[in-house]
Amino acid sequence: MIHERKVLGIIGGMGPMATADLFIKIIELTDAKCDSEHLHVLIDNNTDIPDRTKSILSGSDEPLRFMAESAERLAGAGADILLLPCHTAHYYYDELQKRSRLPVINMLSVLVEAARGSDCKRLGLLATDGVVRSGIYDKAFDGSGIELIYPDSTSQEALMRLIYEQVKAGKEADTSALDSALDDMTRRGAEAFILGCTELPLVFSDRPGRHFIDPTALLAKAAIKAAGGSIKFKA
Amino acid sequence: MIHERKVLGIIGGMGPMATADLFIKIIELTDAKCDSEHLHVLIDNNTDIPDRTKSILSGSDEPLRFMAESAERLAGAGADILLLPCHTAHYYYDELQKRSRLPVINMLSVLVEAARGSDCKRLGLLATDGVVRSGIYDKAFDGSGIELIYPDSTSQEALMRLIYEQVKAGKEADTSALDSALDDMTRRGAEAFILGCTELPLVFSDRPGRHFIDPTALLAKAAIKAAGGSIKFKA
Repeated sequence: MIHERKVLGIIGGMGPMATADLFIKIIELTDAKCDSEHLHVLIDNNTDIPDRTKSILSGSDEPLRFMAESAERLAGAGADILLLPCHTAHYYYDELQKRSRLPVINMLSVLVEAARGSDCKRLGLLATDGVVRSGIYDKAFDGSGIELIYPDSTSQEALMRLIYEQVKAGKEADTSALDSALDDMTRRGAEAFILGCTELPLVFSDRPGRHFIDPTALLAKAAIKAAGGSIKFKA
Repeated sequence: MIHERKVLGIIGGMGPMATADLFIKIIELTDAKCDSEHLHVLIDNNTDIPDRTKSILSGSDEPLRFMAESAERLAGAGADILLLPCHTAHYYYDELQKRSRLPVINMLSVLVEAARGSDCKRLGLLATDGVVRSGIYDKAFDGSGIELIYPDSTSQEALMRLIYEQVKAGKEADTSALDSALDDMTRRGAEAFILGCTELPLVFSDRPGRHFIDPTALLAKAAIKAAGGSIKFKA
């Protein structure tokens, strides 16, 4: 039975800790009693991939080449299904899928499907400038019946500083700078907040009156199912 | 400069969370202000590698074949230096190094070097039956001037249950069952305890009067240096 399972490949490095977060969520959410019941996962933590937001805003598709190389490296090493734990990188998703001989699970599609299954009609989006300005989330949620609420421009700047100057920089993260932004988005109708950058589940977690949706965990569950593993339901 | 750095390859899956622990320690201990300053790390979380303790006690070298395949997979994907985050697997180290075209950092050698640099003369060893009965630690510490203190047989059984029935099984770990063993080893002269199974740093941490040596963190530091990265010294 075990050997019928598929090998997962993670196109990682965007950033490294977000890559580790997906790996850990795959381990924690897999129903396994010993090492050999866990899934075979290959990870390419390729930190040479150029910054996605910078590339999108400057009109460059350089990250695509690096991601396609990573996809090929993982395929060569024996992966069957690929994962891309970076929301901003999904700007290049269609072209990456065209260039990859393996299926790449689309994290945004997984998120939209989960959101449609909830009762939420308005969701706050915490994401990079690359995601916000490219409109990839608007496109993904188009026709879903769910409205996305964005931070105002000052809050979006504070969010970018949190992602780049704290989380990615390996410094202590102070999410309180986002409190008023979350309050404002709640007033504008946000029922929950999408952690739309894989660095954010590392620093945000649910608290009374504030619910965060973690697409990394949703991707981990989708990956376990796709690989033929079974999901452990936490009590 | 960045491209002169070497690519690290982790022969993982023994177990998965211990593999993630090494990956996270490499990230946390690397002095980096953004994604691209982190090291390129390839991980083969190969959960098909047979249990090391079982294999050693039954006289099988089957894990060796799987580890050698993993080493080749990582080499093919572009790794330059290999890491083996499993103490018990070091039973096969010499033969693995012979079969691998890449250097494999020996975690036990890294540990012995660090221990020699400390003031300790007697260290308690918390490890699997495969490590204890094969004597690989005695061999590694031979001539170091450091004496190893082992748990008594009842405590060794409790330790194996902690590793296999709790940590590897993904259950809540209760280290208090080892308290009396640690007290007994302290009475017999242990000045600190080696977490000689990569599952153990996941559940043990320093507390007043009890110091644990974490070979996974030592391996992470050795790997960062070997890859040409710089180590972040935590305040």
